[in-house]
Amino acid sequence: MNFSFQVENTNDNARSGILLLPSGVKVLTPVFMPVGTRGSVKTLDSNDLDHLGFSLILGNTYHLYLRPGEQVIKKFGGLKKFISFSKGILTDSGGFQAFSLSQLTKYHKDGVEFRSHLDGSKHFFTPQKTLDIEHALGSDIVMPLDDCAPYPAEKSRLKEALLRTHDWLQQSKTYWLQSGYAQTQALFGIVQGGTDLQLRRESAEFCSSLDLPGYAVGGLSVGEKKTEFRESLQACLEILPKEKPRYLMGVGSIPEILDAVKMGTDMFDCVLPTRNARNGQVFTSAGKLNLRSERLKFSEDPIDTKCHCYVCERYSRGYLRHLHKVKEITALRLSTYHNLFFMKQFMDELRKSIVSQTFPAFYTEWMNKNW
Amino acid sequence: MNFSFQVENTNDNARSGILLLPSGVKVLTPVFMPVGTRGSVKTLDSNDLDHLGFSLILGNTYHLYLRPGEQVIKKFGGLKKFISFSKGILTDSGGFQAFSLSQLTKYHKDGVEFRSHLDGSKHFFTPQKTLDIEHALGSDIVMPLDDCAPYPAEKSRLKEALLRTHDWLQQSKTYWLQSGYAQTQALFGIVQGGTDLQLRRESAEFCSSLDLPGYAVGGLSVGEKKTEFRESLQACLEILPKEKPRYLMGVGSIPEILDAVKMGTDMFDCVLPTRNARNGQVFTSAGKLNLRSERLKFSEDPIDTKCHCYVCERYSRGYLRHLHKVKEITALRLSTYHNLFFMKQFMDELRKSIVSQTFPAFYTEWMNKNW
Repeated sequence: MNFSFQVENTNDNARSGILLLPSGVKVLTPVFMPVGTRGSVKTLDSNDLDHLGFSLILGNTYHLYLRPGEQVIKKFGGLKKFISFSKGILTDSGGFQAFSLSQLTKYHKDGVEFRSHLDGSKHFFTPQKTLDIEHALGSDIVMPLDDCAPYPAEKSRLKEALLRTHDWLQQSKTYWLQSGYAQTQALFGIVQGGTDLQLRRESAEFCSSLDLPGYAVGGLSVGEKKTEFRESLQACLEILPKEKPRYLMGVGSIPEILDAVKMGTDMFDCVLPTRNARNGQVFTSAGKLNLRSERLKFSEDPIDTKCHCYVCERYSRGYLRHLHKVKEITALRLSTYHNLFFMKQFMDELRKSIVSQTFPAFYTEWMNKNW
Repeated sequence: MNFSFQVENTNDNARSGILLLPSGVKVLTPVFMPVGTRGSVKTLDSNDLDHLGFSLILGNTYHLYLRPGEQVIKKFGGLKKFISFSKGILTDSGGFQAFSLSQLTKYHKDGVEFRSHLDGSKHFFTPQKTLDIEHALGSDIVMPLDDCAPYPAEKSRLKEALLRTHDWLQQSKTYWLQSGYAQTQALFGIVQGGTDLQLRRESAEFCSSLDLPGYAVGGLSVGEKKTEFRESLQACLEILPKEKPRYLMGVGSIPEILDAVKMGTDMFDCVLPTRNARNGQVFTSAGKLNLRSERLKFSEDPIDTKCHCYVCERYSRGYLRHLHKVKEITALRLSTYHNLFFMKQFMDELRKSIVSQTFPAFYTEWMNKNW
């Protein structure tokens, strides 16, 4: 399979690298992936993603499996063709949504049983079925089914989840090789274990032993303390092989990304920039800004005077505030576009700082803003 | 004032012309104006309008007066600067919304009293106040306050509305001249009279006698029969001066536009293409298409194979159907973009057919599609 990862520069533990996807797309890391849950990054389309310059986005297996169904997408030649996006796609396994969005979720030895949050219909995900769905979607990177224990959870529940996750990962790897999916899709292992450092290490050891194309850390940034977040991630990263890409799932905020990159993380995905944008919260070079604020009523400034996105070059805070206040859809889109432009620039600058060995200063500068 | 209208070609009663707006913007007629109720054409922004090529859009005085308030917009240098649109803007008077959206609307000799549909606050529009608001908005073409009788209405109610509308128009003209607004904004008269041909003629005569820059026909396409629509419009257009632009308010559908252009109408505005788009109904060279239809589930065709908008060049009916079915905001935007692109092309082709003296064939071809 045509998948590779090369660390190009390091600055202490922070790394910059290049990920070559099975489809031939090159992705510079550290990378932030916008979330395209149901076949679109909310309020945007693939044309926007091209303009923004994203080369890797995330699609949600659970949502696409339910609607329109992976067989529909397969008929179109896969998710990329369906949404007309020619770059890279990573799909999650749907395990987290089966747990968080569904009702009556039951974990069995073989997989997870759940009812659709849409119509209550019954479904069953196994490690194999998940990979079948993701193969129909045709993503470059596929995540295996895991058991996401809630936070906080008893150690016994965490342990049970971990055993299951490891068992399923082993099955996933076997099926991925047998099915031939390994020829076109890169399977990542997911390290779980909550905030229990011992379990985290155990999980990282197990995952590493399977020698997969890449590794993810799941179940963090779910409400734990900042120190717990750092220590748990640290415990995983110390063990995961340095030559493989490391992906921190569902993260995150600027401070979380800074911390995670500092420890050696390469990949991120999060709904934060897009969801916050829809709530009127935008990112600027000075920190967060609430576009619904009364004090912006007469502001002729752009969201960020230092930003060169077309929203900042064309529209004022006052106008955007008005659009948010009257609930115009245009407000959601313009704010989303800006936030993703911001994230892309931020990650580009962050990467440059690693290349030029100035990441520590970059870290301090950005950590001290108003997030 | 720098406002002019020149009829360039006629094909029977259909006319093509050029409208020169006070701000120097040239508008080719017949023209369709997208509706930007609250400072944005729903789901789009001014960048999109530029790409689509619209040079004249409509803003709603009632909505902008309530939020953000005309004084806020004035601070930004007017509506064009506020929304960053450098072409032309026409504003309605808010009279129709004061009647249709508000509660406890009361018509007085001096104006119309109403309560905001947002917070129940009390407001009073007079002919003068309306023009003050529209001056703060800085639109190129301003519509005067009128009394829009409901449909159907008794002749006595229609007559009362007409007398009031004429009285207010007279006052509007006087104030428009006295205030100096006439130097930068073109005031149009509005012909009312429902479907009563006698009243329509009376109204057209009265409006014409005031020698205003342009004339509108209001109160049509509100539920009357097709023959009533045609006869009422015809009665107005026969009397209104041929050298002035004629604007049919709130219209319309493709067949209505075809009929109205055939009779000599130059300007149109309507929420139909944008509202229908949000409901999944798009326009094609073969007629209407419902994007939510099950039969499009696997369709790899674009909305319209003959359309060159970026939505048709990039996305399939199947993908757009999916986005509509799962209620993604992106669906609303892509459909709106297509429908407005369609309207722009349609009006351009319609205009060309007048120039080349082939409007009758164009009329027949388009009238016979599935609308």
